Amino acid sequence: MTQEYHDQPLPAAALDQIFREARTYNGWLDKPVSDEQVHAIYELMKMGPTSANMQPARIVWAKSDEAKQALADRCSEKNAPKILAAPVTAIIGYDIDFHEELPWLFPHTDAKSWFEGDEEGRKQGAFRNSSLQGAYFIIAARALGLDTGPMSGFDNAAVDKHFFVDQPRVRSNFICSVGYGDPTSIFERSPRPEFDKFNRVI
Amino acid sequence: MTQEYHDQPLPAAALDQIFREARTYNGWLDKPVSDEQVHAIYELMKMGPTSANMQPARIVWAKSDEAKQALADRCSEKNAPKILAAPVTAIIGYDIDFHEELPWLFPHTDAKSWFEGDEEGRKQGAFRNSSLQGAYFIIAARALGLDTGPMSGFDNAAVDKHFFVDQPRVRSNFICSVGYGDPTSIFERSPRPEFDKFNRVI
Repeated sequence: MTQEYHDQPLPAAALDQIFREARTYNGWLDKPVSDEQVHAIYELMKMGPTSANMQPARIVWAKSDEAKQALADRCSEKNAPKILAAPVTAIIGYDIDFHEELPWLFPHTDAKSWFEGDEEGRKQGAFRNSSLQGAYFIIAARALGLDTGPMSGFDNAAVDKHFFVDQPRVRSNFICSVGYGDPTSIFERSPRPEFDKFNRVI
Repeated sequence: MTQEYHDQPLPAAALDQIFREARTYNGWLDKPVSDEQVHAIYELMKMGPTSANMQPARIVWAKSDEAKQALADRCSEKNAPKILAAPVTAIIGYDIDFHEELPWLFPHTDAKSWFEGDEEGRKQGAFRNSSLQGAYFIIAARALGLDTGPMSGFDNAAVDKHFFVDQPRVRSNFICSVGYGDPTSIFERSPRPEFDKFNRVI
């Protein structure tokens, strides 16, 4: 039986933690993130919904000094020092041949056949849904008492060639540092729109 | 001063509500969603991070019978009845000219100039970041005690023409119903991958 939570909002402190008080960090406290925490982030984020349960995200977690340096070398000058300072930075990629996995990920129908011969559609679906998964990643890390620093300033082709060399059908989407944010590394929060600016109820 | 939550995971029940027990619904209880709830979802989701705070999502909430019918008419046969039954279905679009808003959304630098003359880059950034915002939407609704039903089976061009006729630079990304999920409308949860299947720590 599925648990339901109708009209039971999370406590204000929980909404603060995952949305209202959480921030994107540029600097990190000198405190490691364990493999257990890395696993815990994935165990939560994988529960978030994707179209036909396609789960297209493929993640490389750069945690060793060597891996961090290799990633930093392929990033913008502004992002390189952030990566070197962070305990771990995840490269969130997407598999444009995700449909090969659908027979076990979406077993009750032949979903693989929906995507065969439609590489453009697969690229769009994988990019959209791996982005959703990237957002679940960010919320999951925050929900576990960690901070994140998502970034897109890097050389995608060079990152793919280095980190996904054995997975030629995987493309990097964005990267995201995880750790304990240094509060001195952030500025005032950027403005957020009023509802009526970007929404219409009809 | 920014609140920090280091090593303070949310209670298990909160993680269940937003990730582990939450499900995508196909059917809905006959119980309305108020405009206040619609606003509350946006007030949370807008706090989620986007690249250079670009906030490219533009949302039309189809709540009246007329708007729901117009959306259902432009959706797949499988999705049309779900939309007619849901209290509200949001059309999550993205503005490929989001950079026009950056002078106030990201005021401390001239971020608008980064995107001028690069429509392909803007399309990619708007698609990626509106997808992130779509995931924040889903988590925000769940955190508020509501259920969601995200869908991508619709005629994007026809939806854009009808719902974004006055915003020719906005493209639909995906749609998402919101309401109180009918537990009889779902099946067993689809399988989720073990960590090692789609992750590497290096």
